[in-house]
Amino acid sequence: VPERISEAVIRRLPRYYRQLGALEQEGVSRISSLELSERMNITASQIRQDLSRFGGFGQQGYGYNVSALRRHIAEILGLDRKYSVILVGAGNIGQALSNYAGFAAEGYVIAALFDADPSLSGGKAGAAPVLGMDELEGFIEANRVDIAVIAVPAGAAGQAAERLIKAGVRAIWNFAPVDIVIDGAVVENAQLTDGLMSLTYRLGELMAKKPT
Amino acid sequence: VPERISEAVIRRLPRYYRQLGALEQEGVSRISSLELSERMNITASQIRQDLSRFGGFGQQGYGYNVSALRRHIAEILGLDRKYSVILVGAGNIGQALSNYAGFAAEGYVIAALFDADPSLSGGKAGAAPVLGMDELEGFIEANRVDIAVIAVPAGAAGQAAERLIKAGVRAIWNFAPVDIVIDGAVVENAQLTDGLMSLTYRLGELMAKKPT
Repeated sequence: VPERISEAVIRRLPRYYRQLGALEQEGVSRISSLELSERMNITASQIRQDLSRFGGFGQQGYGYNVSALRRHIAEILGLDRKYSVILVGAGNIGQALSNYAGFAAEGYVIAALFDADPSLSGGKAGAAPVLGMDELEGFIEANRVDIAVIAVPAGAAGQAAERLIKAGVRAIWNFAPVDIVIDGAVVENAQLTDGLMSLTYRLGELMAKKPT
Repeated sequence: VPERISEAVIRRLPRYYRQLGALEQEGVSRISSLELSERMNITASQIRQDLSRFGGFGQQGYGYNVSALRRHIAEILGLDRKYSVILVGAGNIGQALSNYAGFAAEGYVIAALFDADPSLSGGKAGAAPVLGMDELEGFIEANRVDIAVIAVPAGAAGQAAERLIKAGVRAIWNFAPVDIVIDGAVVENAQLTDGLMSLTYRLGELMAKKPT
């Protein structure tokens, strides 16, 4: 049984993955922890510690093999396959997500959106159809759905999550401004304001350091 | 000098803040770490450890004072003031962010959007005007800007960040799919796919646990 990777390392893995992709595109085939450190604002020792868990890719005096390491991280993140994604909520956030080209590029394919507003259903968002909420369970039964995104108001999020889990969905990416906690499924609570709060906390730190 | 709060704790603070707000709305005035634990899927001992840094709000046999703790966390996160926010990029993500009611509710006020596409400038996104990229520096000089959101394609993000920092902006929330690292400013890289990658990693763990 492999050692469980800590939450903090998991959060850094997409950054390594993206940085290694940029290096590949620049034609760089190997890179030292020190060079990675300068590009990523993570200390070289942290990078060596993070990447040592995946074994065999860093060599003293050689550095990391960019392509091999990127492939390995992709596997760990489950990016070596495609995922079918549905969105519950076709409002502003739902529409923006369905038009975001970055998802398809990483293998996250949006199959359909669902909305309680009858004026939205029947239309399209990006390449995906917008269906009525009454079609949700039938769609999940007839199609493989790996991930459901919740992009509805806070008051509707809990019920949406319950319907999704009951219908067999095992992964939820929640944009509603309320934490969803469910057993037997993985939930990533992606409240947009959290990023801003973390930013203003660090802005306060930065300003406190400066003489006024 | 107060002890620096770890990255992991900072990431949990917005969740505590949101949960305490929900409790306040439910009329709950005090709560134990055990009850919080059940609502948040964080262990009670982790909660006690996290919150002990802010001192004086938890008492054995009494629990936490919901309102006092929420107010204190708001202060730590810098939510006891308003922030003026501009968005560089008025495409899908920029539009969705400017229409997201949750930001204004927490004191993040969107002052303007900027876009290189002349067909977008002159219009509105939510309540804010969309201006041309040539108006960026002038606007920052004439108005207080606390935070800039970058919502442009990867290729344009680095230059946008440089212009913002040169004009005096000290906090950047970056949605472009490329890491921005800048000295003397705080940058929160909010790549949307990171949330999905963390989700699929954990989905893989969940599936590995189950007998097939």
